[in-house]
Amino acid sequence: MPEVWSAPVRFAECDPQGVVFNGHYLTWADEAVAAWWRSVGLPFAETGVEQLVKAAQLEWRSPARHGDTVSVDAELERLGRTSLTVALTVRVRERVSCRVRMTYVAVADGVAVPWPDQVRALLDR
Amino acid sequence: MPEVWSAPVRFAECDPQGVVFNGHYLTWADEAVAAWWRSVGLPFAETGVEQLVKAAQLEWRSPARHGDTVSVDAELERLGRTSLTVALTVRVRERVSCRVRMTYVAVADGVAVPWPDQVRALLDR
Amino acid sequence: MPEVWSAPVRFAECDPQGVVFNGHYLTWADEAVAAWWRSVGLPFAETGVEQLVKAAQLEWRSPARHGDTVSVDAELERLGRTSLTVALTVRVRERVSCRVRMTYVAVADGVAVPWPDQVRALLDR
Amino acid sequence: MPEVWSAPVRFAECDPQGVVFNGHYLTWADEAVAAWWRSVGLPFAETGVEQLVKAAQLEWRSPARHGDTVSVDAELERLGRTSLTVALTVRVRERVSCRVRMTYVAVADGVAVPWPDQVRALLDR
Repeated sequence: MPEVWSAPVRFAECDPQGVVFNGHYLTWADEAVAAWWRSVGLPFAETGVEQLVKAAQLEWRSPARHGDTVSVDAELERLGRTSLTVALTVRVRERVSCRVRMTYVAVADGVAVPWPDQVRALLDR
Repeated sequence: MPEVWSAPVRFAECDPQGVVFNGHYLTWADEAVAAWWRSVGLPFAETGVEQLVKAAQLEWRSPARHGDTVSVDAELERLGRTSLTVALTVRVRERVSCRVRMTYVAVADGVAVPWPDQVRALLDR
Repeated sequence: MPEVWSAPVRFAECDPQGVVFNGHYLTWADEAVAAWWRSVGLPFAETGVEQLVKAAQLEWRSPARHGDTVSVDAELERLGRTSLTVALTVRVRERVSCRVRMTYVAVADGVAVPWPDQVRALLDR
Repeated sequence: MPEVWSAPVRFAECDPQGVVFNGHYLTWADEAVAAWWRSVGLPFAETGVEQLVKAAQLEWRSPARHGDTVSVDAELERLGRTSLTVALTVRVRERVSCRVRMTYVAVADGVAVPWPDQVRALLDR
């Protein structure tokens, strides 16, 4: 999996236990998925459809702390007719901090629609 | 499932799509699980162990927006030897916004340990 | 000053020093100012203009912690032709945690405009 | 003023008006001040005292949006016996987005204390 996004952990992201609060992993996942779309060759704004988050699964292995830099790898795990799932791994150097799976649905005018052909073409490569 | 936590959606929790950004559901889940522990009759600080988040699963059904008040129901879904899973439902009035499943492990001195007997006794009731 | 907003401090709002991170006071101020507008008798959406934050001043006196409930008082401090300043006090029970001064400008189509007469009438009372 | 910190704006930092919510500027200011301390040649952890935020002043000139990269310049504005003020400018490219002034007090064991000599020596250069 290629690295798509990286950032130093912010002090404000850490909680009284001294580690990153769990909700901030979804902020990072959001930025990483946007970067993954760009790496695929497709600014998401040009797909003609919107993507909505349908589901998220997170599994923590080890904490991230202030002073750490986190990096996120991403790859397409599954492409459905109207949905897709991206698998992400958040690491602190080599150490895995969290595995995240984000599932999106393609939406146009508020209704689930099939992914446009040009999106499928890019993702099927 | 009994309601354990409720709050008006904050403007700062909403993103440019006009809906609550997905990561904030984990902030709400965290507060709801803390309230659920209190409702069980057990201030968590007194269990002798710490709980660490091990996994989170979220499945969105409909958005929450500024102006909405969200309420969260919670119930124990599974009690393992060293872990437990709480099932939560985030609602806007009757409408389900998100189902969340939080899994925790009991930890003492950084190592997973069995839940103390007084915790099990309260949860097995 | 009347209390316009109140909420329990959230765990995720607290940082590794065990106190609320300073930026979250602006989230609270935002909610409190919205509540103040409602208390004035004016849902802000109906003023015909938008308000934009122009400046914020915060002065901390004592920390807020997880377990505390913060309450916020608000009153109009100054009404200008196109701007207004709201003075807020964030308290934990009787203790002052932070004094906040928020200054807004009235904007229509991206340009500063005088406050509409019906806004002035409500605020001059 | 030298640039001390920079980051792409995150989607989750933007609100329904499409611009960065004001509170996040304090998160950026916090990271920028930490970077400024490092640039001064002084890891703050080694000063023997803690710094606490005493006051913050923010004045917005123009919004930052998703897609923008913000950069922050910082310089010492005033060094008092027990306090200091850092002046920061948040920019999107050349355009000023916000001017921030952060005031800290030196604290040891919860009481305001004079800045240690080695801190003064570094800052007076």
